[in-house]
Amino acid sequence: MTNQGKEDIAIVGAGPVGALLAVMLARKGYKVDLFESRPDSRPDASARALYQGKSINLALSDRGWLALKAIGLDEEIRAQAIPMTCRMIHAIDGSLARQPYGRENQAIWSVSRAGINEQLITLAEQQAGVEVHFEHKLTGLDFNSGSCAFDAPGKGQERVDCRRGLIFGADGTFSKVRRLAQELPGQRISYSLDYMPQSYIELTIPASSDGSFLMEKNALHIWPRKNFMLIALPNPDGSFTCTLFMDLQGALSFESLDDEHKVSDFFRKYFPDAMPLLTDPVATFMAKAPSPLCLVHIDPWVIQEKVALIGDAAHAMVPFYGQGMNCGFEDCRVLSELVEQHQHHWPDILPAYQQARKENCDAIIELAKRNFVEMSDLAGDARFLLRKKIEAKFSEMHPELWIPLYSMVTFSPELPYAQALAVGEVQKEIMDEVMNLPDIEQNWQADCTYRLLYQLAQEKLTPNTLAKTVSNPLSPGPLNSLSQQKEVKA
Amino acid sequence: MTNQGKEDIAIVGAGPVGALLAVMLARKGYKVDLFESRPDSRPDASARALYQGKSINLALSDRGWLALKAIGLDEEIRAQAIPMTCRMIHAIDGSLARQPYGRENQAIWSVSRAGINEQLITLAEQQAGVEVHFEHKLTGLDFNSGSCAFDAPGKGQERVDCRRGLIFGADGTFSKVRRLAQELPGQRISYSLDYMPQSYIELTIPASSDGSFLMEKNALHIWPRKNFMLIALPNPDGSFTCTLFMDLQGALSFESLDDEHKVSDFFRKYFPDAMPLLTDPVATFMAKAPSPLCLVHIDPWVIQEKVALIGDAAHAMVPFYGQGMNCGFEDCRVLSELVEQHQHHWPDILPAYQQARKENCDAIIELAKRNFVEMSDLAGDARFLLRKKIEAKFSEMHPELWIPLYSMVTFSPELPYAQALAVGEVQKEIMDEVMNLPDIEQNWQADCTYRLLYQLAQEKLTPNTLAKTVSNPLSPGPLNSLSQQKEVKA
Repeated sequence: MTNQGKEDIAIVGAGPVGALLAVMLARKGYKVDLFESRPDSRPDASARALYQGKSINLALSDRGWLALKAIGLDEEIRAQAIPMTCRMIHAIDGSLARQPYGRENQAIWSVSRAGINEQLITLAEQQAGVEVHFEHKLTGLDFNSGSCAFDAPGKGQERVDCRRGLIFGADGTFSKVRRLAQELPGQRISYSLDYMPQSYIELTIPASSDGSFLMEKNALHIWPRKNFMLIALPNPDGSFTCTLFMDLQGALSFESLDDEHKVSDFFRKYFPDAMPLLTDPVATFMAKAPSPLCLVHIDPWVIQEKVALIGDAAHAMVPFYGQGMNCGFEDCRVLSELVEQHQHHWPDILPAYQQARKENCDAIIELAKRNFVEMSDLAGDARFLLRKKIEAKFSEMHPELWIPLYSMVTFSPELPYAQALAVGEVQKEIMDEVMNLPDIEQNWQADCTYRLLYQLAQEKLTPNTLAKTVSNPLSPGPLNSLSQQKEVKA
Repeated sequence: MTNQGKEDIAIVGAGPVGALLAVMLARKGYKVDLFESRPDSRPDASARALYQGKSINLALSDRGWLALKAIGLDEEIRAQAIPMTCRMIHAIDGSLARQPYGRENQAIWSVSRAGINEQLITLAEQQAGVEVHFEHKLTGLDFNSGSCAFDAPGKGQERVDCRRGLIFGADGTFSKVRRLAQELPGQRISYSLDYMPQSYIELTIPASSDGSFLMEKNALHIWPRKNFMLIALPNPDGSFTCTLFMDLQGALSFESLDDEHKVSDFFRKYFPDAMPLLTDPVATFMAKAPSPLCLVHIDPWVIQEKVALIGDAAHAMVPFYGQGMNCGFEDCRVLSELVEQHQHHWPDILPAYQQARKENCDAIIELAKRNFVEMSDLAGDARFLLRKKIEAKFSEMHPELWIPLYSMVTFSPELPYAQALAVGEVQKEIMDEVMNLPDIEQNWQADCTYRLLYQLAQEKLTPNTLAKTVSNPLSPGPLNSLSQQKEVKA
């Protein structure tokens, strides 16, 4: 391949999404410069403190795997990933309940953010045409000439000319590329940045002295406490990374727990089984500044046909569906497919990219926001669990008619998020009706329950209903094609 | 009065809201510096071109009057204002239909933006302790020391020290104060700026040669054409200022009408009665750049206890409810009342101000957005008009139970916007049910219709229902206190 006549491409931000994009575009014959403000974390493990303020591990699921498979990195990453086949719910009395995520062979995978990022950067460096520039901090962008300016230590102000090229902003939730675009006069850019009431800190449950896991390894552990929750994901070294999500302000909040006594009482009261396992929870709580959670919406994603946003820079979401990185990886996969489809003609590719992604990313932002309630409150609710059981049973009986919402989002990478959201809303209506059946707690296994479900699903989940709510060009079509979807083995 | 021990106050932006605020605070004994980036428009009428890109006249209604009355400027402004007692709907065949805005003695008033702004600035200058600084463009704000920096011609960079004081950002939709606050590190400011699909240009219908009005004077004229509309407000000189609202892009839009032929055909087809009255509509359409319409939400309004946003800077809305300036004036009135209530103690006043206003401003932003459909589409719809007639009749029968939404917003200044929105939603549910009665078109005057309405209103508009949806400290209480509200004669 040659980059003859092809645009030069600058990618700002070498997080997982920027690095994956660099690999994909290089393999299509583009010369790619990948800029990152942080230093290279690879020579020295201690440099991983660089990732401070970002979560330590992430849940990779089928949309992410599909993108990694496209560049052949899936097996290498899977070798260090830990499958989590269920939620493990820790009640306040210490009792445990297992909630499978999907069918028996389905799982989400705990991976190290730093690890996957480093593997992707290493792969990017190995591509012909890719140059990675660490410690390059974007200072300016000229949208007309397409040139970027960076502060680079030792080199002072470095200008990089992208006159022939394109610039991707893969620089995260607080994207500088995005901010510079918003300051352009005459652009009509709609934008929102919403801080959630919750913030988070990370805590650790270490491995036992023999290196084994102190809790069930193949699970995502949740301590749902309604307005706050603790979760834990396993790491390959036998430890768990825990995250405490709680309101920043208010009656019970990061701010209200302002001395060691209160914090100690808090952990003892709400997380009695986790408390003795956690490494210095009280001291860590007192020492750490809670990180914010926010949502970003912006429209358009493409500015002056030269600059496009991707990943969190375009659509930052909360982590409650485990889809942030998966969604960013999907951005890259879809963009890469559009490069082929439009034969490298970027004036067509970029608008098609926004068209394909914007609606779906809005949908997953919304779904992720709603999922806080499901994780922190409903996960411990008996009626909610019954609803899940009925859905799971019906889905097994009629997989062509019903895939539970969680599975559509997590295990159905060819089903666009917007369609999952739309179908999920109809499913909710149907299940509300089913849950109103008299004595459903006793009769949930009765045939009549599933006859009603079948009838309602037939009636409300017709292809026509769904076609109206979904209009995605990459959509495999309305619900009746669900059964045809390829399954990505997880 | 003396400003002994009182904070010095800087107000950035001498539009109608900034100037009104200056008057109110000066009368409470504060030293106020009012900064404006534009030159003074008063010495020379031609300087009114300075208001370019802003609408020429505005609809002042009871919330605005209440604030103006508080500073004694209402009579002076009313002398130059034109009451509009109804909408005058221009059908595509040129036929006219009159829709009263409220009861016989109720009106909204057409005023000149420049005129009211100049009167307020003149009044501000007359207050002891107020200094007005034109051609002062804000360049920086130090939120810790409370100092502002301005570019002032002839004076170069001028720094104004507000170390002892407070700063109000009354600098409009694209507020610089707001932008500087957002750039502060460590603040968690949620923010959105949304561009509407519609933009607008202004056109003119001149006075006739003898100075009289070419259309009904005491009306707000509307040519509702579903996805777009033309409106006209009367001016004291016999002319009308017209505004064409239309999508910026799309099948029929400012962009699609790209030559004189198309524009001419457009006006002839959709505005046949207005076309011959308008001054050079085609040339004006071709020459003018459409102005954008946008919504602004921000939270918090108060930053580091020193800086507060007010008016459009805090809550820009679309003009479809005629409430933008009225709402900004209400901000000033409420703030001024809180100064007394909290005995000049600003650490209490500013949070109480945000608490009192934020929810209500969110409500009017939403109501104004929804009203585009009512003005541009429903205003010409027979069933919608019937609904309005039934509501009006019922409201006359039971004013203690039912005030139409438009009247709650426009003619009930002591009813908070959030309560109007909440009550309006219950009213909509009730009217949906009434409109579903068989043959309502024929039977709308029948007693049984109003018995049903009475029953539904009694049932759904209980104080309890409403208390739950409304929680405003300045609220006069739930719906059953509506009947006690004082009426502001318009």
